[in-house]
Amino acid sequence: MQTIQLKSRPVGVPKLSDFKFVTEEQPQIAEGEILLKATHISVDPYLRGRMMEGKSYVEPFELNKAISSGMIAEVVESKLAGFSKGDFVSGMLEWKEVQVSKGEGLLRVDAKKAPLSSYLGVLGMTGLTAYFGLLEIGRPKAGETVVVSGAAGAVGSIVGQIAKLKGCRVIGIAGSDEKVEQLVSESGFDTAINYNTAENMSQAIAEACPNGVDVYFDNVGGEISDGVMMNLNRFARIIVCGAISMYNATSVPMGPRVQPILIKNSVLMQGFVVSNYLEKWGEAIPQLAKWLQEGKLKSTETIVEGFENTPQAFLDLFEGKNKGKMIVKI
Amino acid sequence: MQTIQLKSRPVGVPKLSDFKFVTEEQPQIAEGEILLKATHISVDPYLRGRMMEGKSYVEPFELNKAISSGMIAEVVESKLAGFSKGDFVSGMLEWKEVQVSKGEGLLRVDAKKAPLSSYLGVLGMTGLTAYFGLLEIGRPKAGETVVVSGAAGAVGSIVGQIAKLKGCRVIGIAGSDEKVEQLVSESGFDTAINYNTAENMSQAIAEACPNGVDVYFDNVGGEISDGVMMNLNRFARIIVCGAISMYNATSVPMGPRVQPILIKNSVLMQGFVVSNYLEKWGEAIPQLAKWLQEGKLKSTETIVEGFENTPQAFLDLFEGKNKGKMIVKI
Repeated sequence: MQTIQLKSRPVGVPKLSDFKFVTEEQPQIAEGEILLKATHISVDPYLRGRMMEGKSYVEPFELNKAISSGMIAEVVESKLAGFSKGDFVSGMLEWKEVQVSKGEGLLRVDAKKAPLSSYLGVLGMTGLTAYFGLLEIGRPKAGETVVVSGAAGAVGSIVGQIAKLKGCRVIGIAGSDEKVEQLVSESGFDTAINYNTAENMSQAIAEACPNGVDVYFDNVGGEISDGVMMNLNRFARIIVCGAISMYNATSVPMGPRVQPILIKNSVLMQGFVVSNYLEKWGEAIPQLAKWLQEGKLKSTETIVEGFENTPQAFLDLFEGKNKGKMIVKI
Repeated sequence: MQTIQLKSRPVGVPKLSDFKFVTEEQPQIAEGEILLKATHISVDPYLRGRMMEGKSYVEPFELNKAISSGMIAEVVESKLAGFSKGDFVSGMLEWKEVQVSKGEGLLRVDAKKAPLSSYLGVLGMTGLTAYFGLLEIGRPKAGETVVVSGAAGAVGSIVGQIAKLKGCRVIGIAGSDEKVEQLVSESGFDTAINYNTAENMSQAIAEACPNGVDVYFDNVGGEISDGVMMNLNRFARIIVCGAISMYNATSVPMGPRVQPILIKNSVLMQGFVVSNYLEKWGEAIPQLAKWLQEGKLKSTETIVEGFENTPQAFLDLFEGKNKGKMIVKI
C-alpha cells in the first residue's frame, strides 16, 4: 500500500524529488472506524503554502508524513454507524491508497447525482471558493464588468460562469490561445486575454473593458494583477483568492504599492479562504448542484490517471497544464 | 485682495515656487450671493493629489487658478436668504482673502458652540474621516488592538481617541519622541512608536502588540505600513486613508506585494474618501460634538497665523511639522 510523503520543503519551484513514495502495511480498522480506498485526489495551488514552514491559516505539512488534500474515497470496510461498504465520501484525506478514518469531516457523496470528481470541483471546495469569493466579497451587480485571472483554472472558470449568471460582462485572463478560445466558446466568457502574448496588460484590459473594471477576481497576483489594477472603477472590489505567481518565490515579491489606487477609487481588497463561509456551505452546494443539473454551470476538469502521478499533477499546476480542476483518478 | 494660485504642478516635493500670490480687485455681490471673508484655511496632505493632472476622486486644480480646500469664512455682506452679515460658514472655498458665493455646499457654524477652527478639524472633514474610516471600515471591537500611523496628524490623533472610546488597545506611530510622548500623555494612546528611531518597524510593532494587530488605520503607506502588515491577525481590517509617504513620489513606489498577506489572514484592505459617507454625516457630527463637549475627545491643532503663510503651512505637512490638524488663521 503506497503513500506519498513530503520529503523536503521545496525551495522555489517544487520538484518531484521533494516527494517520496513509501510502502506501508495495509491498515486494519477497529470499532468506530472505516477503511477507505482513495478514488480521486484534488491537487491545488494552495498546497504549496502548506509545504512551507510557518504560521498560516492551515498547519504546514510535516516532513516524512503523508500529504493531505481534498479527496474522494470508497468505504471498503465499515465498523462505524452511518457508513456502509460501497459508500463514497469526500473530505480532507491523506495521499494514501488506503487509509483508516473515524469519519470526522467526511461527507457522503452520491455518485448517481453527479460524477464523483465534481465533488472535488464544482460541488466541492473549488466551486465554493468561486461562489463565496465572487458573491460575498465581489457582490457583482448586473451590467458590471468582472475580470478573472487564472480564468481557465479550477476556480476561475467557475467564477466567470457565475458572474455571467449574475448578468455581468466577464473578461478572463489565461495563458494560451487555446484556453482563451475555450473560455469564450465553452465557459461563456465575453472575451479573454492571453497574458503570454498581450504586450501591455493594462492596455489589454482597458481595451477589453471599455467601462472599466468593477470586480476583479484575482487568482494569480503579480504583473497580471498590476495591469488590472490600472483599470479599476470607483468602488471596485478585488477578491484576493490566490497568488500562484508568487507561491514559488524565494524572496519577497515586490511590486507597485497598491495604497494610492485603493484611496483614489475607494477600492476594497479582501483576502479569504473558503472555510470562512463554512456556515453558508449548506445553502451554496444545492445552488451549485442546481446550476450544474440545469446545464448553466459547466464543470471543466483535467483528469490524470494513476496514484503515482499525483506529485507530477501538482507540479503541472504551476505550468498551467490544467484546464479547470486538476484531479488525479486512482 | 490676495489670492493664492497654483503656478506649476509640483514634481516631487512641492516648493513655494509652485504657488503664486495674485492681487485681484475686491469682488462685488449680486442678488442671491454673499461676500465671504476667509478666517481659517485647512491645509491637508490630500491636496497634493489635486495638484497633479489625471483622473482622481476629485478634479485636479487648474494652473493659474486659485487653490481650494476646506475653509471657514465670515459673511461680510449678504444678498442671499438664510445668510446674514456676521454669520460664519464652513465649506470648500478658494484660497482668497475675500470671495463671492451663492451659498452652495456651505454650512453655517456656531462660534459659540465650538472654536471656529474645530469645524475644520474634529467637527469637520478631519473628524469625519477618522470617524467613518475607523468605525465603518475598521469596525473595532472592545479588546482589539488598533494601530494608527500618522498618529500625531490631524486624522490619526482623532482615530486613536475614538478607538480608545470603543475599548480598544491603541498604538500610535509618529515621527518624533515629543509626538510619541504627547500621544500617550494627551491623546490617551496606550503606547506609541517613533518610526525615526525604531530600528525594525515590524519588530517594534510586534513588541507593542503582543496580541497582534486587528485594525490598522493607515495614513502613510510605505515602509511603516510594511512593518505593520507583518503583524496582522486573522480577519484584520486595514483602513487605507492616506499615503503621505508616496504623495511626492516621482516614480511608481514599489514595495512588498500584499496579496499573500491578505490571503493568509483573510485581511480586508479598503480605500475611502469621507464623501462616501455623506448621508451619514448628519449622525456623526453630533456624536463628535458630544464627545468634544464631554472632554472625551481632545482637538489637537497647529495654528499658523497669516494668509501669506498658507503655502508654507501646506509644505510643512510633508515634514511632519504639525501636531494634529494644521490650520491657517487669517
